Amino acid sequence: MADNAINPTRAQNYPEWYQEVIKAANLAENSPVRGCMVIKPWGYALWENMQAVLDGMFKATGHMNAYFPLLIPLSFLEKEAEHVEGFAKECAVVTHHRLTPGPDGKLRPDPASALEEPLVIRPTSETIIGYQYAKWVQSYRDLPILLNQWCNVMRWEMRTRMFLRTAEFLWQEGHTVHASSEEAVEETMKMLDVYSDFAENYMAMPVVKGMKTPDERFPGAVDTYAIEAMMQDKKALQAGTSHFLGQNFAKASGIKFLSKEGKEEIAFTTSWGVSTRLIGGLIMAHSDDNGLVIPPKLAPLHVMILPIFRNEDEKPAVMEYVNSLAKELQAQTFNGAAVRVKVDARDMRGGDKAWEAIKQGVPVRVEVGPRDIAQNAVFVGRRDKGPKEKSGMPRAQFVGEIASILNDIQSTLFARAKSFRDENMRKIDSFKEFEEFFAGEDAGGFALVHWNPAAIGHESLPRLKVTPRCIPLDGPSENGKCIFTGQPSLKRVIFAKAY
Amino acid sequence: MADNAINPTRAQNYPEWYQEVIKAANLAENSPVRGCMVIKPWGYALWENMQAVLDGMFKATGHMNAYFPLLIPLSFLEKEAEHVEGFAKECAVVTHHRLTPGPDGKLRPDPASALEEPLVIRPTSETIIGYQYAKWVQSYRDLPILLNQWCNVMRWEMRTRMFLRTAEFLWQEGHTVHASSEEAVEETMKMLDVYSDFAENYMAMPVVKGMKTPDERFPGAVDTYAIEAMMQDKKALQAGTSHFLGQNFAKASGIKFLSKEGKEEIAFTTSWGVSTRLIGGLIMAHSDDNGLVIPPKLAPLHVMILPIFRNEDEKPAVMEYVNSLAKELQAQTFNGAAVRVKVDARDMRGGDKAWEAIKQGVPVRVEVGPRDIAQNAVFVGRRDKGPKEKSGMPRAQFVGEIASILNDIQSTLFARAKSFRDENMRKIDSFKEFEEFFAGEDAGGFALVHWNPAAIGHESLPRLKVTPRCIPLDGPSENGKCIFTGQPSLKRVIFAKAY
Repeated sequence: MADNAINPTRAQNYPEWYQEVIKAANLAENSPVRGCMVIKPWGYALWENMQAVLDGMFKATGHMNAYFPLLIPLSFLEKEAEHVEGFAKECAVVTHHRLTPGPDGKLRPDPASALEEPLVIRPTSETIIGYQYAKWVQSYRDLPILLNQWCNVMRWEMRTRMFLRTAEFLWQEGHTVHASSEEAVEETMKMLDVYSDFAENYMAMPVVKGMKTPDERFPGAVDTYAIEAMMQDKKALQAGTSHFLGQNFAKASGIKFLSKEGKEEIAFTTSWGVSTRLIGGLIMAHSDDNGLVIPPKLAPLHVMILPIFRNEDEKPAVMEYVNSLAKELQAQTFNGAAVRVKVDARDMRGGDKAWEAIKQGVPVRVEVGPRDIAQNAVFVGRRDKGPKEKSGMPRAQFVGEIASILNDIQSTLFARAKSFRDENMRKIDSFKEFEEFFAGEDAGGFALVHWNPAAIGHESLPRLKVTPRCIPLDGPSENGKCIFTGQPSLKRVIFAKAY
Repeated sequence: MADNAINPTRAQNYPEWYQEVIKAANLAENSPVRGCMVIKPWGYALWENMQAVLDGMFKATGHMNAYFPLLIPLSFLEKEAEHVEGFAKECAVVTHHRLTPGPDGKLRPDPASALEEPLVIRPTSETIIGYQYAKWVQSYRDLPILLNQWCNVMRWEMRTRMFLRTAEFLWQEGHTVHASSEEAVEETMKMLDVYSDFAENYMAMPVVKGMKTPDERFPGAVDTYAIEAMMQDKKALQAGTSHFLGQNFAKASGIKFLSKEGKEEIAFTTSWGVSTRLIGGLIMAHSDDNGLVIPPKLAPLHVMILPIFRNEDEKPAVMEYVNSLAKELQAQTFNGAAVRVKVDARDMRGGDKAWEAIKQGVPVRVEVGPRDIAQNAVFVGRRDKGPKEKSGMPRAQFVGEIASILNDIQSTLFARAKSFRDENMRKIDSFKEFEEFFAGEDAGGFALVHWNPAAIGHESLPRLKVTPRCIPLDGPSENGKCIFTGQPSLKRVIFAKAY
């Protein structure tokens, strides 16, 4: 075994390291369908844990779930002018509803089953949901509508990467309708806060909350807000977005209501979403050259117990000990629920089992052999430390401290990611410095620069492979000058290479 | 207000009554996409509660969730001969991956984006999952594979009915792989038991567990097992199926493994599923002429509190009382979780609110006005009783008894459905009696008749609109004679009109 389980390492080749971590942790794999992945049980368990937390947050903020059709009539996509440009391009188009054997005996779409109007697999659902909302909303009494749906969507991406950009992906999309602009903006910001809370306090991934510059807005939105995280290669990952859609989609869909004063008014809408892309973010924020690292609050398993015995004679006593240890640990509470524990009783080399647990990112490993039992002790390894940094502990102490150990791993991961992010985020006040900051494949980070909308489309950006990420909401107002154009600027914008 | 809230009543027009219950309870509605429905929040909350229970049962029986692609290459459907016949017909076919404006400026599929091999939206996933499993399974050590996925599927149905038969529907599909036939059969039966447990103990819907006759098998299965429930119109609803696929799909997909003895063997697979059709079953099993009736264990809300006041002066005291009542109720436990309570504080007539709660199937309604407060009492209506059968109760008694009231409603609904089913299920021993039993639109029930496979396709069945539902597993072995052919028969088969 090399010093590290993942080859290449992050330093050697970050993109390949990412693919290898996914493989080693058994999270997902490519499918025979172009750009579509198979999410394997360990990867899906991460998504289930994310869903459970987010769903609870959505419900706590007054939302309910619903489900709208997968297929969207082609004409719906044409309703909102900017939306057409953004979404009515690379998408999966259903044109027939039957297969029939052709002259060669092979199945083919039956020409007689051609649809009058082709249907598109939803790339996002503003248009079809808006159609339905227009029927539901008559009066101000019908507002607000606060709904979310968990579903699959599809965008025919040319270059795909597992979790980060796939043709089909899983996500949630919130769609709300309000009587006033103020209320819709409030909703937009509230959901941005929910995403930020989730990213920082569950994924242990620090994020910058900010507004998108006009060129990076959701097609059809008045304002798009996002949370941006820094990965270990210093690139930015847009981890969630919340859109204030103003009246654009309400006009396109005809969502109107009679106000208290009896006047017909056009409603205001929002939409907001996060996707399985978050799993890509989680991988890249914390994992190391030994594989996946999972923040304990989202880990499908908190403790993997590895029974160690040299022969069948030693086995019964060891198994009895580890099974009772597992029960004691399961009786402990972490983050409001029982500690999740498994005994790896497979007939395999102990070292191989330990490495598997490491590669899969299990927060705590416990090795127990006859010598430990004699001392009523356990041998504990933490995933936030090196694979060989293990230490013995009295059993009772370990059981009593498991929740605080898991909390400590959670906060260590956050602190580590935050200090990395902060070290690689800096104010830059000249274009020369900006070019130097981003020059070279591995260079970069978050550059906080003054910027004016006149700089949109500046020639340097594609050359440096850099995009504006967001205008941080907590950034101070300053009297600055755009580093690209010299025009006045009141707020700094984060620029970075991005996923 | 008429005596009943739903028109027509069940007796007047059962199919229309069904649609009206869905509308009155705000469960779902049709969408602009042919055969696809919108599941509204109250309907989706039912599905979420069903999912939570079933998912827990799947995990308790050793399964994990995963996710496989929505789209299936056309050639995959051709791999299993019988499967082609069953599923490669009416399905949504994706043929293009881009839209482009045509000569009229309107979007159309870009001819340049035609796919080399069309893709089909999954009607079921045996073929695509089998392809992946073939890569995962090498040795007996890789078995069993015990996975499930929650997803949407699509079958281009010609005649659709909300929840019962829609083009797109939500379901779960379990797919497992085993080293031996015995183990796969055991899995098939285990999941049938899970479905039966869920139907009876959560949906309060009695079911018959049985094996399908050969003509009703899943295309490609060796044996199909199902749970069959009786609706209030005496028709059967197939509520869940569990398939023993033998080696058919394993051969088609190439799922092979090296046995302990080092021999290459073909694996055995199973698949099993339930869908949003269960919501249709729940509606039709329990609802009455006043709307939806929900078994408390699956109810999104257990208690609706209706504050009653004649003027603004009375309001504060009433609201304070009902809010503290709600808190007390929420502190009670039913079915392992907190009692779900809501105060309907909307500015609407109390009677309208009460009828809304009735139509939506909330198990318990509580009316509280100044007179009740004076007596520290509440006025309680149960959804399993008539809308006017309400009774006063001391507040403390009501709070203390809420869990047992909900349990009582749950068992009342089951007992009611079971006695209806039992009254309408009978042994029939001659073809003449069989014809009489089913003659007429409203006639029927479950007919237990002796039957021999030689009777498959008997002329009377389409005429009577009757199909074989299943061979009950708990039916005794008898020396009988097929009522259609006179051939020998060892087991009775249930025949019924069916959804």
